Amino acid sequence: MKNLFISDLVNKVGQEVIIKGWVQRKRDHKKIVFLDIRDRSGIVQVIGDEKFKDLNSEDIVAIKGLVKQRPKKLINPKLLTGSIEIEGKEFSLITKAQDLPFDIGKDSINLTLPTLLDYRSLTLRHPKIRAIFQVQETITQTFRQIMKELGFVEFQAPTLVATATEGGAEVFPVKYFDSTIYLAQSPQFYKQIMVAVFEKVFTVAHAYRAEPSVTTRHITEYVGLDAEMGFIDSWIEIMETAELVLKKIIQTVNDKHVDILKMYNINVPKISTPIPRIKLKEALQIIYERTGRDIRQEPDLDPEGEKEIWHYAQEKFDSELIFITHYPTKKRPMYTYPDPDNPEETLSFDLIGRGQEWITGGQRINDYNNLIENIKKWNCNPDNFQIPYLQAFKYGMPPEGGFCIGLERITMNILGLSNIREASPFPRDMERVDIRLKKAVESQL
Amino acid sequence: MKNLFISDLVNKVGQEVIIKGWVQRKRDHKKIVFLDIRDRSGIVQVIGDEKFKDLNSEDIVAIKGLVKQRPKKLINPKLLTGSIEIEGKEFSLITKAQDLPFDIGKDSINLTLPTLLDYRSLTLRHPKIRAIFQVQETITQTFRQIMKELGFVEFQAPTLVATATEGGAEVFPVKYFDSTIYLAQSPQFYKQIMVAVFEKVFTVAHAYRAEPSVTTRHITEYVGLDAEMGFIDSWIEIMETAELVLKKIIQTVNDKHVDILKMYNINVPKISTPIPRIKLKEALQIIYERTGRDIRQEPDLDPEGEKEIWHYAQEKFDSELIFITHYPTKKRPMYTYPDPDNPEETLSFDLIGRGQEWITGGQRINDYNNLIENIKKWNCNPDNFQIPYLQAFKYGMPPEGGFCIGLERITMNILGLSNIREASPFPRDMERVDIRLKKAVESQL
Repeated sequence: MKNLFISDLVNKVGQEVIIKGWVQRKRDHKKIVFLDIRDRSGIVQVIGDEKFKDLNSEDIVAIKGLVKQRPKKLINPKLLTGSIEIEGKEFSLITKAQDLPFDIGKDSINLTLPTLLDYRSLTLRHPKIRAIFQVQETITQTFRQIMKELGFVEFQAPTLVATATEGGAEVFPVKYFDSTIYLAQSPQFYKQIMVAVFEKVFTVAHAYRAEPSVTTRHITEYVGLDAEMGFIDSWIEIMETAELVLKKIIQTVNDKHVDILKMYNINVPKISTPIPRIKLKEALQIIYERTGRDIRQEPDLDPEGEKEIWHYAQEKFDSELIFITHYPTKKRPMYTYPDPDNPEETLSFDLIGRGQEWITGGQRINDYNNLIENIKKWNCNPDNFQIPYLQAFKYGMPPEGGFCIGLERITMNILGLSNIREASPFPRDMERVDIRLKKAVESQL
Repeated sequence: MKNLFISDLVNKVGQEVIIKGWVQRKRDHKKIVFLDIRDRSGIVQVIGDEKFKDLNSEDIVAIKGLVKQRPKKLINPKLLTGSIEIEGKEFSLITKAQDLPFDIGKDSINLTLPTLLDYRSLTLRHPKIRAIFQVQETITQTFRQIMKELGFVEFQAPTLVATATEGGAEVFPVKYFDSTIYLAQSPQFYKQIMVAVFEKVFTVAHAYRAEPSVTTRHITEYVGLDAEMGFIDSWIEIMETAELVLKKIIQTVNDKHVDILKMYNINVPKISTPIPRIKLKEALQIIYERTGRDIRQEPDLDPEGEKEIWHYAQEKFDSELIFITHYPTKKRPMYTYPDPDNPEETLSFDLIGRGQEWITGGQRINDYNNLIENIKKWNCNPDNFQIPYLQAFKYGMPPEGGFCIGLERITMNILGLSNIREASPFPRDMERVDIRLKKAVESQL
């Protein structure tokens, strides 16, 4: 197997090596050919003679050559391997690529989003796009690591469900033998059930929302970093846990991906300690006072309001992250715990990061009878929730709550991407499941 | 938050503590009440006076009491905390449970599988059932850890797909706005695509099979521990990687879960090094010679054959695991690499563990034109596979292959469970998605 990577070459000056990778770029100067060779670890320049002429973009090659120090004035500071180059001796072609539809050899690729996604299997290879998913991997793995450190147990939540999870209409039906079932909108019910098994649990789960709208912040299949914890003394502990996890994630991305943050010309979000917390009502009042826009009667922040609160948090607290708490009872799901001091409001929170919702969480109703009452208030039939959900409460559920971090949302906002589709390797939306669906329908006519 | 767990009590003899947990069992001796209190970490006996009488199974309580050493003859060696007990002083009820449908207070619960699953939110709490998912967590986390150590990159594969992944009929259709799409039968295409991005990748992905049959070894939603690796020099490297991963998993379960293996009265599978490898043809011949049953013309092992090969491997190699290789070209998916020495056979393998398939893997066709030819041979239309799958090959894919470990299968077989449904927290099959589907259909009439 391949055991030499391009990033290893800086320590091999003067040695003859064989590297394997893709031709990222070729410049043909008649008797001399310059090739940028890419592998997962980096890019290196190879200087070859005429026999290298026939190589083209994305061809996969094994190149034998001598690692040389570059003259000082030719050092490329943008590349990890910018201080070296390879004097190519010979090569063997591993796989020939067909002609590319566009050049992916430059530092950035300038494509419209539809083209970027139409050629996803190609564009994902570009170092700047690939980098998004290195950051995403770090986020996921850091989440799991900190959850384990905090004593949470990981489990696998199912994604096929018999009842639309939260009573809403925005679910995808699945034809399941002779029945119709649904794709889970979240692992919510299952993580609550598992609290009565392991007390503190987490899961990284795919979830599905059939929202019939096309925005820059929604995809139909998303990944949730979900946690749920029992035996809480106060709902504040949930928010504190979310804060701890988030800080660890941001710190780790910052420590590990200096080069990628530089590539995206961005810093990780500024956070104050503790992350500021304001009630939704206060947030709406602040927006009114700052902008004159009066949304004080609304049960939630709108996208414009979320942006304004971000600016406010930066100015007032020097923080790009802020918790908004006490969402109205009417606006939150039926299992949300009402504030005993004011039952119109719930013990719930969202975290707004860089002007978008990253996290949602709160305490849940853990008393069986109260939960049944609330389900009825929401005009749902408790019978539809008995198995498996209400059963867990019938037989004893401690006070509990939890939160969910949207993986694509946080990836998008940490790197400052303008569309959530860029933060999913294979994003699904109303119009696309790899292929453009409308086109697919047409072609079948 | 709760920060004292029952397993911590052995170091607290002579101290007054407050423990929080569920009433696992109560024995009422008039003036004295014996309670077994359970939390995630263990069970401890509490001895209380009459005021503890009203507590019942699954009630959640906080109990204040004194930790005491038990007299030697009363030590319960089966419990981690069997050398101590708590002299209960007072308690507060945290959550009241309703009357249980059956006793879950004993060491084992004797229920039929349907009842076990009808009351899943309750039965999952039983220490012996909960233990299955502690082992499952260890398997998943060990897989990820070893993959990372080997330089693989984790990614999130989508589960919604536009085309039935492998051309088969056993897919679930999803109504997706105005289109019909499908649930992925595996992350196969996506992990291959990602090889051209990160060279070595893995994913823990839910996958779906609409097999219209009810067996003890199939569920409709399962979890695959999937890996794929590029720049291989030989397909043997894939099998070697699978072997390395598997050994690490089994070793870790053995080291970490001595108590659970004892509870299930089982040892982890015996493995010889290297794991023996025989061609399918040889396996079929061996079965014929050992049993007289002639399935030598079959393209695969049947369940009886898999069992026989397990016995054979134990006797011949002192191994409960064995690789079966070189499955016939006709029987494997269209992307499987034919053996250049005999194109009727493929460079593929299954791992049979304790008489069942745990792993499937092999080398894939990485040449674009060969892959298109093969898709046609399988009577499929390459156009349906262009985006995103074939696109990855069009623009250069190195020699590659991979494998998938069935998470529920390996959990089931390591612990010697008799039905795969026991190895999934919320198993889905033809007849059940939490609720029994037929019953659900009836109740809607």
